[in-house]
Amino acid sequence: MTSHPASLRVAVLGAGTVGTEVVRLLVTQADDLASRVGAKLELVGVGVRDLHAERDPVVDPSLLTTDARALVDRADVVIEVMGGIEPARELILRAIRNGAGVVTANKALLAEDGPTLYAAAEAAGVDLYFEAAVAGAIPVVRAVRESLAGDHVHRVLGIVNGTTNYVLGKMATEGLDLERAVEEAQALGYAEADPTADVEGYDAAAKAAILASLAFHSRVPLDAVGRTGITGVTGADVVWAERTGHVLKLLAVAERTVDELTGTQGVLVGVQPTLVPASHPLAAVTGSFNAVFVETAAAGQLMFLGRGAGGAPTASAVLGDVVSVARHRVVGGRGPVESSYAGLPVLPADAARARFQLRLDVADRPGVLAQVAAAHAEHGVSIEAVRQAPSDEGVAHLVITTHTTSERALRATVEAIGRLAAVRKVVSVLRVEGA
Amino acid sequence: MTSHPASLRVAVLGAGTVGTEVVRLLVTQADDLASRVGAKLELVGVGVRDLHAERDPVVDPSLLTTDARALVDRADVVIEVMGGIEPARELILRAIRNGAGVVTANKALLAEDGPTLYAAAEAAGVDLYFEAAVAGAIPVVRAVRESLAGDHVHRVLGIVNGTTNYVLGKMATEGLDLERAVEEAQALGYAEADPTADVEGYDAAAKAAILASLAFHSRVPLDAVGRTGITGVTGADVVWAERTGHVLKLLAVAERTVDELTGTQGVLVGVQPTLVPASHPLAAVTGSFNAVFVETAAAGQLMFLGRGAGGAPTASAVLGDVVSVARHRVVGGRGPVESSYAGLPVLPADAARARFQLRLDVADRPGVLAQVAAAHAEHGVSIEAVRQAPSDEGVAHLVITTHTTSERALRATVEAIGRLAAVRKVVSVLRVEGA
Repeated sequence: MTSHPASLRVAVLGAGTVGTEVVRLLVTQADDLASRVGAKLELVGVGVRDLHAERDPVVDPSLLTTDARALVDRADVVIEVMGGIEPARELILRAIRNGAGVVTANKALLAEDGPTLYAAAEAAGVDLYFEAAVAGAIPVVRAVRESLAGDHVHRVLGIVNGTTNYVLGKMATEGLDLERAVEEAQALGYAEADPTADVEGYDAAAKAAILASLAFHSRVPLDAVGRTGITGVTGADVVWAERTGHVLKLLAVAERTVDELTGTQGVLVGVQPTLVPASHPLAAVTGSFNAVFVETAAAGQLMFLGRGAGGAPTASAVLGDVVSVARHRVVGGRGPVESSYAGLPVLPADAARARFQLRLDVADRPGVLAQVAAAHAEHGVSIEAVRQAPSDEGVAHLVITTHTTSERALRATVEAIGRLAAVRKVVSVLRVEGA
Repeated sequence: MTSHPASLRVAVLGAGTVGTEVVRLLVTQADDLASRVGAKLELVGVGVRDLHAERDPVVDPSLLTTDARALVDRADVVIEVMGGIEPARELILRAIRNGAGVVTANKALLAEDGPTLYAAAEAAGVDLYFEAAVAGAIPVVRAVRESLAGDHVHRVLGIVNGTTNYVLGKMATEGLDLERAVEEAQALGYAEADPTADVEGYDAAAKAAILASLAFHSRVPLDAVGRTGITGVTGADVVWAERTGHVLKLLAVAERTVDELTGTQGVLVGVQPTLVPASHPLAAVTGSFNAVFVETAAAGQLMFLGRGAGGAPTASAVLGDVVSVARHRVVGGRGPVESSYAGLPVLPADAARARFQLRLDVADRPGVLAQVAAAHAEHGVSIEAVRQAPSDEGVAHLVITTHTTSERALRATVEAIGRLAAVRKVVSVLRVEGA
């Protein structure tokens, strides 16, 4: 048994929105934290780039330092909330080599180079915790790493980007177009001045990569994640989603499956706008909330809902990790180790099997539906439902929902349909959640 | 650092529905479990009452024993899934004194005598885990004990009894009366032959007591939990819930609050049928699902949804705990300790503040509403909305929703209303969730 230290030295790297709230919790909850950890958490410094920037008064100016390395070197627990790849990576690796426990909220870094960090932590025998990196305050990392450690995860679905969820919601409820909805999100601080990381799905893809690697104990590189953002989503997509009993969500999907073409067992990870049935628990996740839905062999369906971003929610997740890491230094032991023992390969995106909804502009004359149906049949794609919208100047609008099929077969079908003379335009092709 | 054992001896006490599924996971997931724990989990025996009862073939008959004490004495990790108070308590205490780690799903025992078990585990320096005791597969115990350890919980709301949720759902969607809905639940195996523990709210109260003690770091005895079951719920209650934009749920509520009468800060814990606004995430929790909604200072609102009962879901939660407990024996350390350091008292149930909905049968004549409104005003209860239903043979039906008030003031109001000559009957008084 380790001897019980009277206090642990805690360093915070970064004093932005999240860092400020982390400091606030360290200060205001000091007594509670000491009770839970079994030792006092002593904040020894806050690493910043600019000593003179305006800050919340909860951050004691005498704790600020621009010498992050020296700060790391005098800490038992390092909290990295600066974001970005460097110098975050270098500082985390330095803390790990020093034997300090590390808590990070840095999803970009974990998605880019998680295995390097996991391996360093394992080699040094120290904790690396990162609950806040995926879905903010929602304790899904701990659930997957610990609570479900005796179960077998089949699939993880997530609304893991609050900005796009807010934007799609505004398009649905107020009929705004994408650009206007993004502007509203920016005005409310839900979207950044450059919204690319959110609307193009990069942020969601990073979280999907992290979740998939945890859930399936395999390495999932960020560039193996299929990614379609919401920039192609139109008001008509949103309206048709509702008309057909769905809600359009940017969904991150990670599943264990078999590529039918090659027989390879592996992991499929993708982010794409998806039609979620209105009765699905994820359909009710509105505004900037995040939610993660997990399907397992024994537990069945689980869902976790909460704030996926923001200073205070992210700080809550960080502090939960800090208590775990600090407690290990008091009573001994270590948290779960990230392993890739299952070693599943990441399958190509077109190995996915799903239902799809196609919307087509076609010539408004008899026989067109028969041709379109024949194109489906040729590629082995079975149609579940067809709906035809009132025609306009000789153009009819066909909405086709398929049964579960491979994305490969679907793509081939869409190509064939696009070549039909009677088809003016394949307006949209969207995945539909549910079997 | 502890030396790494090649294997750990695991004992399972009980081979009912849950015990069988626990054994199944131990057997079928043996390799995965070994990877996660860092040592093989060796099932050394299954304690049963009857060696010759018919069992699932996954349970190796040669492992069965009726000598539970001897089984406990040769285990490193003891899984108690037999239920009931004795001999479960005696066996768990024996395991703890032996220095074994313990995982239990026994909510009745924890609600009745948790502090004795927590203290014994603390004194012996061993783990006592019990995720499966509250809301089955939903990892809410770990969330409250660990993920939110750096945050401050204000309130916990839960649908923690799947049987009553199923029954209330059937009443709402199919217009069944309570008795018929309970019969359907029994036919599907959702309710037991004697449904008392579920419909009278005892099961939910036990879970509420456990959750409240964890969330508020205080001792919450079972008999301090206010409890109203669903036996008084009528079809009309369910219909009126819907008409006023609500769904009727049996809700467990635990909150940190101040008793206005005495100024005492404390914890309020109760289980009662509650009108949940249709837009609230808990309103969408249907069938036999459970959900727990947590409000904290930093994280804000979190919700956890999943299967609250059943062999496989409960076993999933048990095995997650087993991995944690077993891992501590491999790499050292210990899980969180249940503490009551906050020492908050449990407040009397009538200190609760909430909105309420009253339904009254009144004489259908002018001036009655004025009298009823005056009775509210006299006791300082402010009315938010009044609705009057078509009268029938001289009797009108008044539906009154109050603003937030104390339960004390509400009770006094209801008494005063009951004394009015024009009031034929106070038909129902229900709590309304939300401010």
